[in-house]
Amino acid sequence: MIAVDWGTTSFRAYRLDAAGIVLKRREAPLGILAVKEGRFAEALESQVSDWLEHGEALIVMSGMIGSRQGWKEQAYVRCPAGAFELSAQLGSITWGMHGRRAWIVPGLITRDAQGVHDVLRGEETQLIGVLDALGTGSHTVCLPGTHSKWVRIDDHRIVSFSTHMTGEMFAILRDHSILGRTMENTGDIPAAFDAGVARAREPGGLLHHLFGVRADSLAGMLTPEAAHEYLSGLLIGHEIATVAPERGTVHLLGAASLTTRYERALSAAGCAVQLMDPDAAVRGLFRLAAGLAQRN
Amino acid sequence: MIAVDWGTTSFRAYRLDAAGIVLKRREAPLGILAVKEGRFAEALESQVSDWLEHGEALIVMSGMIGSRQGWKEQAYVRCPAGAFELSAQLGSITWGMHGRRAWIVPGLITRDAQGVHDVLRGEETQLIGVLDALGTGSHTVCLPGTHSKWVRIDDHRIVSFSTHMTGEMFAILRDHSILGRTMENTGDIPAAFDAGVARAREPGGLLHHLFGVRADSLAGMLTPEAAHEYLSGLLIGHEIATVAPERGTVHLLGAASLTTRYERALSAAGCAVQLMDPDAAVRGLFRLAAGLAQRN
Repeated sequence: MIAVDWGTTSFRAYRLDAAGIVLKRREAPLGILAVKEGRFAEALESQVSDWLEHGEALIVMSGMIGSRQGWKEQAYVRCPAGAFELSAQLGSITWGMHGRRAWIVPGLITRDAQGVHDVLRGEETQLIGVLDALGTGSHTVCLPGTHSKWVRIDDHRIVSFSTHMTGEMFAILRDHSILGRTMENTGDIPAAFDAGVARAREPGGLLHHLFGVRADSLAGMLTPEAAHEYLSGLLIGHEIATVAPERGTVHLLGAASLTTRYERALSAAGCAVQLMDPDAAVRGLFRLAAGLAQRN
Repeated sequence: MIAVDWGTTSFRAYRLDAAGIVLKRREAPLGILAVKEGRFAEALESQVSDWLEHGEALIVMSGMIGSRQGWKEQAYVRCPAGAFELSAQLGSITWGMHGRRAWIVPGLITRDAQGVHDVLRGEETQLIGVLDALGTGSHTVCLPGTHSKWVRIDDHRIVSFSTHMTGEMFAILRDHSILGRTMENTGDIPAAFDAGVARAREPGGLLHHLFGVRADSLAGMLTPEAAHEYLSGLLIGHEIATVAPERGTVHLLGAASLTTRYERALSAAGCAVQLMDPDAAVRGLFRLAAGLAQRN
């Protein structure tokens, strides 16, 4: 089969054997924003034409390809949901003279106790990919990123989740706020990061703590290099302060550049951390394809 | 005397009589960012040359004109401070063949219990302008804005304050984040604003609540018009949740467009609100000039 992780800015394709082993992998800067005039079929075939010619007929895709801006919008599936519900609601799209068909994984939607919604798209497939590693019982998974996801998994099913705009907030503060004027990225400064994480636990709230970056910079207490790392710690610290379980392990799933920071901040908050295999998406796609076979 | 409130984007000048009564007022879009190559003397004289010719010799200015980007940087004065300390530390600048001189009000700096700094510049003069109206005792003053200030005043002295990046946060989220894509400003929608204020009191934290604006928009629960007002209420609600005193009156000082929103949010939080005369800056400049006369 062909497994495709198709996001906003990147395209990743995998050719898998019948046991789910990755035979080949390809990556291209061909996210959905780079595809013009809805030519998704063309874009896909340009990347995997040789695999198709070799007879691969089963294609399963996840990520923003199933969003309103993607190939074909897939309605969100309600939580709680596991592999069974997601496989059952894979959408399909057909194209071309050869009658090609691809399946698209839907995202998930949940509501909190106050009735406010939350959504994710793409992460559901990564989560399906780590269900076996997690096993039965209740687990907390954190997927750091532009929009960080905190997910509760009970007995192989995604029960609920919450999103935090931490990564996007960092980017817009750096690029568009007054804080960016006294900030420079020269790489990791763990002491400054830790100071930001610690600040998040103090009273005053995020909107006030942010201005402290400015004031401490003006007062000569924060260099531009330190301010960059302090802001990162402050935002991650605020995220963690509202969601991290007081006891229990947080399973981190994501790129090392981010999970390293989250691991540090979580440890400071007294949480045990377990790193998950970041290649979970391809395993999730394989698992959902297997469910599709059962469904048909 | 001539009182000048000279900010980042605006210039306001007042001619006052010996009792502090405003005889004339002028306003121009001549904030410090609009003054090229440090030609502040020229800019000032272009606005008040006739008053100078009529013999006014005492000029006192407040606002960003005393910042690093202004005419002459004035070091921050440490809290607690009242009219006496600020008058004593007015800086002066002289220019031209006629030996003209102007005084510049310094800003204030404070540190919280954790040693983190906070600063303000311009608001100190507005606060001096409302000291008489407040009288003795302990008071909470809120000046809403790009950087909202919450100030504690005890017996005519500014004891401490905290800044919240609420207004700037609203602007960068609207203009540069994913939330701006599903948001449109069509004016006040009180029910949506109130819903945002109420959301701020629920668990989850600001970074999570912000994503809820996106998710509820995708779920069809928030129109673009309502999302704009909901976000405003959410941010103001988060600010208030961390600073508003549980009991006691909050004195609001600022433009009606903002104080109306804060009054609504504060009332929802159970706070009594007292609106202050928004023209406080000119009164503060007069009061500080009087202190200057005593100093000389």
